[in-house]
Amino acid sequence: MKKLTVTLAATALATLPGLAFAQEAAAETPDINPYIFTTLLFLIGGFLVFWMAAGFAMLEAGLVRSKNVTMQLTKNVALFSIAAIMYWLVGFNLMYPGDGWIIPGVMGPLFATTSLEPVGLGADAAALDYASVGSDFFFQLMFCATTASIVSGTLAERIKLWPFLIFVAILTGVIYPIEASWVWGEGFLDGLGFSDFAGSTLVHAAGGFAALAGALILGPRIGKYKDGRTIPMPGSNLALATLGTFILWLGWFGFNGGSQLAMGTVGDVTDVSRIFANTNMAAAAGAVTALILTQLLFKKPDLTMILNGALAGLVSITAGPLDPTLFGALLIGAVGGVIVVFTVPMLDKMKIDDVVGAIPVHLLAGLWGTFAVPFYTEGTSFITQIVGFATIGIFTFVVSGVVWMILKATMGIRVSEEDEINGLDMAELGMEAYPEFKGS
Amino acid sequence: MKKLTVTLAATALATLPGLAFAQEAAAETPDINPYIFTTLLFLIGGFLVFWMAAGFAMLEAGLVRSKNVTMQLTKNVALFSIAAIMYWLVGFNLMYPGDGWIIPGVMGPLFATTSLEPVGLGADAAALDYASVGSDFFFQLMFCATTASIVSGTLAERIKLWPFLIFVAILTGVIYPIEASWVWGEGFLDGLGFSDFAGSTLVHAAGGFAALAGALILGPRIGKYKDGRTIPMPGSNLALATLGTFILWLGWFGFNGGSQLAMGTVGDVTDVSRIFANTNMAAAAGAVTALILTQLLFKKPDLTMILNGALAGLVSITAGPLDPTLFGALLIGAVGGVIVVFTVPMLDKMKIDDVVGAIPVHLLAGLWGTFAVPFYTEGTSFITQIVGFATIGIFTFVVSGVVWMILKATMGIRVSEEDEINGLDMAELGMEAYPEFKGS
Amino acid sequence: MKKLTVTLAATALATLPGLAFAQEAAAETPDINPYIFTTLLFLIGGFLVFWMAAGFAMLEAGLVRSKNVTMQLTKNVALFSIAAIMYWLVGFNLMYPGDGWIIPGVMGPLFATTSLEPVGLGADAAALDYASVGSDFFFQLMFCATTASIVSGTLAERIKLWPFLIFVAILTGVIYPIEASWVWGEGFLDGLGFSDFAGSTLVHAAGGFAALAGALILGPRIGKYKDGRTIPMPGSNLALATLGTFILWLGWFGFNGGSQLAMGTVGDVTDVSRIFANTNMAAAAGAVTALILTQLLFKKPDLTMILNGALAGLVSITAGPLDPTLFGALLIGAVGGVIVVFTVPMLDKMKIDDVVGAIPVHLLAGLWGTFAVPFYTEGTSFITQIVGFATIGIFTFVVSGVVWMILKATMGIRVSEEDEINGLDMAELGMEAYPEFKGS
Repeated sequence: MKKLTVTLAATALATLPGLAFAQEAAAETPDINPYIFTTLLFLIGGFLVFWMAAGFAMLEAGLVRSKNVTMQLTKNVALFSIAAIMYWLVGFNLMYPGDGWIIPGVMGPLFATTSLEPVGLGADAAALDYASVGSDFFFQLMFCATTASIVSGTLAERIKLWPFLIFVAILTGVIYPIEASWVWGEGFLDGLGFSDFAGSTLVHAAGGFAALAGALILGPRIGKYKDGRTIPMPGSNLALATLGTFILWLGWFGFNGGSQLAMGTVGDVTDVSRIFANTNMAAAAGAVTALILTQLLFKKPDLTMILNGALAGLVSITAGPLDPTLFGALLIGAVGGVIVVFTVPMLDKMKIDDVVGAIPVHLLAGLWGTFAVPFYTEGTSFITQIVGFATIGIFTFVVSGVVWMILKATMGIRVSEEDEINGLDMAELGMEAYPEFKGS
Repeated sequence: MKKLTVTLAATALATLPGLAFAQEAAAETPDINPYIFTTLLFLIGGFLVFWMAAGFAMLEAGLVRSKNVTMQLTKNVALFSIAAIMYWLVGFNLMYPGDGWIIPGVMGPLFATTSLEPVGLGADAAALDYASVGSDFFFQLMFCATTASIVSGTLAERIKLWPFLIFVAILTGVIYPIEASWVWGEGFLDGLGFSDFAGSTLVHAAGGFAALAGALILGPRIGKYKDGRTIPMPGSNLALATLGTFILWLGWFGFNGGSQLAMGTVGDVTDVSRIFANTNMAAAAGAVTALILTQLLFKKPDLTMILNGALAGLVSITAGPLDPTLFGALLIGAVGGVIVVFTVPMLDKMKIDDVVGAIPVHLLAGLWGTFAVPFYTEGTSFITQIVGFATIGIFTFVVSGVVWMILKATMGIRVSEEDEINGLDMAELGMEAYPEFKGS
Repeated sequence: MKKLTVTLAATALATLPGLAFAQEAAAETPDINPYIFTTLLFLIGGFLVFWMAAGFAMLEAGLVRSKNVTMQLTKNVALFSIAAIMYWLVGFNLMYPGDGWIIPGVMGPLFATTSLEPVGLGADAAALDYASVGSDFFFQLMFCATTASIVSGTLAERIKLWPFLIFVAILTGVIYPIEASWVWGEGFLDGLGFSDFAGSTLVHAAGGFAALAGALILGPRIGKYKDGRTIPMPGSNLALATLGTFILWLGWFGFNGGSQLAMGTVGDVTDVSRIFANTNMAAAAGAVTALILTQLLFKKPDLTMILNGALAGLVSITAGPLDPTLFGALLIGAVGGVIVVFTVPMLDKMKIDDVVGAIPVHLLAGLWGTFAVPFYTEGTSFITQIVGFATIGIFTFVVSGVVWMILKATMGIRVSEEDEINGLDMAELGMEAYPEFKGS
């Protein structure tokens, strides 16, 4: 979602010849419809991506054991709320270029809170070639929150609530806005030609790298790896996990479609349509691939793999949902499904305990999606895509790792062994999610 | 949601100079885009607020004990359906001024069912400065149903189905339309300058007052208050309650955003964006405040308080979601979170048994939100806000109380002691929500 | 959803006098707003109907016993994904007329995959009187998938996964596109004057006929009918079933509203509003009717009947959601509710085991809705409606029956008796949906 520089007093812009939609016959009154359409795109896209916060909450609540469900729900509501505040307080202005940049192309001003347009904005004061700041902020905020949602799943069932939330504040206020500004804020990776349409790298892989750093420092759950074997710890509610996946799938139309950043011309709205169709196809292909592969490999289809296959398909198409044909989207999504089926067990072999499979889905399928862009998008190169992915990956991984280590050294990030075994719900919250139903 | 007078044959209006968006260069053909945009706003806003009916159903089903879940679900589906019929049969015409008012400024004609525009309406017959009647009715209906949803949570686990549904019919057909017409139907409170943008008072506090009257007359659940102590009766499914909260949060973008009542100008769509951003901020602030406060006060974060904190933030911003800055929205929402944390136990001390916390969330945060309007909105006064709140509160409370007492005297409103202990599901419906899972 | 022929190079059309919205003062630049509005209608309608896939998944997962929940979820995710691929691979081009039809008016070319417009389509190359192909494909695909969702509920708890999925591939790739093309693809039933606005027959009854054929060939669940009695097998999670119903209700606004196929004029957007209001009214009337009837007949309201009553109301209004008044919509929906309450037990008497009641809801209410069209829509005849319904019904039933019989003869369609008793989750998938909660 690279966006144009937005200046609040965009009067000048409104009369530029670049404003291609202005109907010549009505040149004296500028055409406001593109502005309204694009703003509406951000509002609809924004509420759809908001809905993904509920999707992550349901997916994760369904994939943890019942003794940790209340905690997982609490983390998801809290992380979204904290992201909403941090992105307003710091993130949005740090991410997008504006007045007073500290290091142009690298980092914006810290602690400049977001200001919206005044009430009842006049057409002469609006950025008629783009959209309202309010809708843009609303939309971008949801991407920032998504990055944090990815982390919570990996680290479930053993991380303490408060250090996790402090990490979320830093991730959403600082880490994500800085790395994302390198591409979407007209930063140096954008200058290099790195292409990431809706965030396979910037959102999904970045979230995955932050999660990976946490998982390595936090260690696996007690009893997960024993005598060289991986002990299954099945999720407590696959209906919730499936609901969460459907919610994410729905929200993704807003995620990718809104990232067109314009809907006021024939070309833009037709492109948004193309993105919707491709996004859906990639998800379907990821799911079907995981269905077939798990049947072939394990003799039984595996629902959690199918769900993650759909999500991996979605992550894969996110770096370039516009340019592929529907068949291209199918191929890209299908490879996402393959990645999930093969890398989920691989992570377990490496004793990296990722409770919901977020690293395969978001980091590895994100890598694939980012790499795949040059197959369909002219003017992009495989090398630049890898360089961009690596740059953002290393930055996010290292900074996240440092934060996790500081948190570990100061307040501790892991609950006690006893609390982990009894479940975080009773230990940290004193409240069970399903108090009337007997756990096994 | 104060709206302009809608006349079905609005031909005259369409040529008024007030139609500010008409492009001068094309004066002979009126600009129909604002009409389409605003109609679309109502359709999108309407389906989002419809979705809140599901949110209340899930929230309440998650917060009651498993033996009452089927009943709570039944009530929620039924109350929405009854509201849809009553608002068509009586409510919409009673609420909005039109021909044949009985008491101008106070009450409209009873039993005038809603008529929509004819199929294939021509531009010359449309209210081009507003929106289609169909979309307006669809949108307004959802607000009416929301009022009833609030009541069902408070009175759960002990009220009989049918008297509850009769109350819903009266509330949605008569009580809500009359009090709401005093402000949104160009009634006397609107004339006084009372300001309630999307209904902190008209919808939320009114629902809360109807619930309070019911709770007082119905009495607490058996065993809830014993020997001066409050006995916790934890909800059976916090995942559902969290899902319900996310659904409500999502729906609230339509609730507040749609209440701008216009989307066809730069100013209007930018205002809608501002409302979306502020609504989200208030919810986030309410949740974070409840998170921090419950940690400080009870040493453990309380998920149900956090969920109610988010909802209280939403209710608080609803009276004035447009004018505050994002920081203002944060403050307004945060106070909502404080209110919930302190007043939920307070109600218990007063032995008012509110199963889901609807009175703190909707009535008390609604009071705060209504009172807070003059901090940000010019031309409003604290005194008028209190007067308006009190007028609507007293009216709704008294009329609801009378209805509840008549229902109590005639058919009885409370299930038998035995039925309450066994659960309403088996006693009144003969159907368990989770028949295969053992309750504790 | 009968649509105009879409030609990619629709330049000619754009200058036709039929393009009524073109502002005369700007005649040299065509008005692109109707194209954007209609495309947006398809995108919004499409994501709402997508959401219905989640609704069916939740409804069905809630109405089967816990030992079959993982399987029901797997089937729903897989069937949607397969539909998405098959409709792209075969269905869309088979359904809508285009170059190279094999039998004009009856069947299009097999295996012509869907192509979307190029990226950045120019206004001169767009079908300015309609919408983008991408949005249209996205929208239509969701209808195709809905047809398959209907089948999975009826055949739950006993059908093998893979033969079911093969049937889905044939249904969504071939059967549905062929029968739907007879009406929406300018086929012979359209020529006869058969009217089915959004698919009471084409989608719902067709799905119901495919399900009925399957149910007859598959047989009832073990123990369902014993000694002349019907043994209740209550659903495991009525909260999920209710959630699913609310999701379907929400999605239906897109289903019926989007089928207006245009939103760029005053008349069209007002019609879409009318459709939203009528759709909601029919659902409400169906629910209230089932509520009252089950109280009167069985002395206790039955939540699953109320949910199916709402759905039957929705199916009933789908053949003609535009023309009735709100009172007409109420009547049409109410009859849908009556149908459900009386025909669910009737099917059981005939020993047709329909786990979720999909045949009453989709086939029988679909029949009623199709038949009811001439009450409100001029130029339609009861005879033609019956002829059209019967033609599509017989075709779908016979072809589905043949496919089911071939599947039965070759790979078998039913799990072993032991597997059925133990539950499909452990037998076919090795994964329980609620592993920690004890089933009864």
